[in-house]
Parts: sequence; structure tokens; C-alpha cells
Amino acid sequence: MSLKLFELVGSDDTRPFSPYCWRTRMALAHKGLGAETIPWCFTEKEAISASGQGRVPVLVDGDKWISDSWTIAEYLEEKYPDRPSLFGDGAGRALSRFYVGWADGVLNSSIVRFVVLDVWKQLNPKDKDYFRKTREERVGMTLEAYVAEREKYLKGFRDGLMPLRLALKNQPFLGGDKPLQADYIVFGGFQWARTVSDFELLAADDPVAAWRGRLLALFGGLAGKNPSYSG
Amino acid sequence: MSLKLFELVGSDDTRPFSPYCWRTRMALAHKGLGAETIPWCFTEKEAISASGQGRVPVLVDGDKWISDSWTIAEYLEEKYPDRPSLFGDGAGRALSRFYVGWADGVLNSSIVRFVVLDVWKQLNPKDKDYFRKTREERVGMTLEAYVAEREKYLKGFRDGLMPLRLALKNQPFLGGDKPLQADYIVFGGFQWARTVSDFELLAADDPVAAWRGRLLALFGGLAGKNPSYSG
Repeated sequence: MSLKLFELVGSDDTRPFSPYCWRTRMALAHKGLGAETIPWCFTEKEAISASGQGRVPVLVDGDKWISDSWTIAEYLEEKYPDRPSLFGDGAGRALSRFYVGWADGVLNSSIVRFVVLDVWKQLNPKDKDYFRKTREERVGMTLEAYVAEREKYLKGFRDGLMPLRLALKNQPFLGGDKPLQADYIVFGGFQWARTVSDFELLAADDPVAAWRGRLLALFGGLAGKNPSYSG
Repeated sequence: MSLKLFELVGSDDTRPFSPYCWRTRMALAHKGLGAETIPWCFTEKEAISASGQGRVPVLVDGDKWISDSWTIAEYLEEKYPDRPSLFGDGAGRALSRFYVGWADGVLNSSIVRFVVLDVWKQLNPKDKDYFRKTREERVGMTLEAYVAEREKYLKGFRDGLMPLRLALKNQPFLGGDKPLQADYIVFGGFQWARTVSDFELLAADDPVAAWRGRLLALFGGLAGKNPSYSG
């Protein structure tokens, strides 16, 4: 039974950009699994209604519809226990939850400040009004005004990556010698930014940039082949 | 061979307060190990010179002097593999490093804002000048001025705990069903604050407060018995 994955795209069907979908893409590759990609737009809620909610990633495995990148990772881990573990066995699964908390609650919400207008620019035209309206309500101003001073926030953003920098001081991946779901959870945010925007979040000599480079190179350059958005 | 642990104390020898020493106290208890406590003050660098550096915790095991709470945890894990694991096996050790990064780089440095004057107040008199001088240089003002507006920073601090809150949504401990070194790494900061100050960092209904309560109760109330400082 072949797997299907609904992934968020913009005007280019071949360039998924959601940080959460990238977690799942990397998880599938980690397990050595292929999946048929189904490009999906924000306003196509009906296409994934069988999942019982309105967001992607959604993985379809036969008659099973599984949403949420964490739940999908758990599903893959349980269904394919003989393939490389996503959590590193032992307490790895429980310990990986904090990475979700940090990536969702700190990292990705900080990245919005830098790329939200660039996200809007590359959206499918039918999504643009929906996205602008919901996001401008959230930030209380136009997207243009919101990102206008993004340079001013860059130092604070980079300072906030200290936990990653410290963790990567003694090991190439958050998971240790080899990458794990914890790496993909965090990497999703950087890949999202890179896919929609040419704004450089990381200084070239930041160890976090070196780690991102290692993630971009995994699985034959799966993530690295997705080019930066060039406007 | 009995273990000895140098722990930072203030004017009360029986009340260790360093967040890093608490990581080690909890780790020893987790492994079911006792240790003779040696109260230590900031200015007693010579007493621990055999460790090759000037900070605590320092664990002495026969002729071995081991410093740094992470290195001590690794040492205990390797020396006592048959006792409950501190890292939860598998990739747990590698995945726990990010917790150190977050606790050192974000949590503990944020807590300073609220408790640094209270730390000074309860110090051993011989440490007071040293501490005030080094910390005031670091923050660029008197300790009194630094903490004067701490209430203003409380909301931001609590918002910054979102990663913990999200991680603890589905499990009682960061390590899962049972606490691990990852829990002790983070808990150290809260125990430090509680030991030196009556300033309440957490709202009573915060799930992080409930988790802290579970940590305080562990090992027969080891951490909970250390009373709050009352001035």
C-alpha cells in the first residue's frame, strides 16, 4: 500500500514549504519510505476533511488518515519498528517532545517575524487573501509593516538559538552521531524560512548553520534540492 | 568508597542553592547513591583546585575529582550502569544535551533577573563583596536597580516557559513517565530560585508548577525539604 502525503505548497506545486510538512518528509526518508506527494493549499480544507481537521501534514495510509507531524512520526515508528528509529529508542520519544515545544513555541513563532511577507508572496493566488487576513489579525498590522524592521530583531533571534549552539558543541546532530526526529523537528523551521525567503537567518560561521548544512545534505540532498525562493 | 560532593551554600551551610549542584544532588538520588556534602563558598577556590577549575558541583570519588554537572551525570551513568539510567538509554544522553543548552542559555539566565539580589542577601558574608562586584559588572548597574522592576519581566519569563508547558502536556516528566536527568537539568533552576528567594516565578495553575511539585516530592522530598528562603 503506497503512502500519500498532503503537503502545503504555494504557487509552485513542487516546492512544499511548511515547517511541519518538512518534519514528515524527513521522517519518511529516515524510515526509507517513499510517499506520493499531494500538493495542498490553505483553502483546500475539504480535501483533507477525512483527517478530522484542517491542517497539513496529513499522511494517508490505505484507509488511515493521520494528521500532525508528531502523531505521524509515532505512527511510522510503530508501524516500521525494524527501520531506523526516529526517536533513538529508550526514553528518546519522551525526550523529543520538548523539541516540539521549543520549535513550535519559540523558534517557528520567531521566524514568522522575518518571513511572513515572503510566505504571502509565494502563495497560490487563491490562498493570498485568506493568509493575509488571518495573519494581519494576529499581528495587528499589515504584513509589510510587520517585517519592515526585521533586521532589528535579527540579533535577538540569533541569541535565542543559544540552546541549539550549546547542544551541538559536542555532537553533530541533536540526536547524537546520527540525526533523529528531534533534528527534523527543529530543522523544519529553518527549511521553511529558506524555501520561502532569501533572508538569511543565520550567520555563516554559526555552528547552527553548519548543522543546517548537514541536514540539507541528508538523504541525497532531499531538503537541499528545494531551492531558496527568489521572488 | 564513599562519595563527596562540594556544594555551593550561603550563610546557612545546610541549604545548597546552586542550580547546577541540584542537578547533581538529584542525579545521585536517582542512582540511589549517598554522598557526603561539603559546603563550599564562591571564594574557596583552593578547596576544589584538585578538580582543575573553580566551580561546583565537584564530586570526589576516591582519587577522582569530577566537575561540571553534565560530566558528573555521565560519570555516574558509566560507573553505575545497573542502577536506574539518568538518560533513559538509547539516544537519551545525546537528546538531553539540548536541555542543558536551554536551561543554561535561557532559563537560568532569565531567573537571574528575579533573584540575583536575593542570592546576594543569603550569601556567606565572605562571599558578598566578590559576588556583588562580579555580578554588577555583568549587568552594568547595582543589584538593587537590576531587580527593582522584576515584576515587569514576569509575564515574558512565564511566556518563555511555553516549551516546557507543551512538553508536559502529555507526560508527567520531561523524561516521560519517570523523571530523568533532563528533568533535573531544568528543575535545578527552579529549585535555585525557590531556595534563595520567596519571589514566586510560577503561577499556581501553571502545569510547570505541577511538574515542579512532582520534582520536589521525589526521593522522599529531597528537594522539597530545602525550605524557601525567608529573608
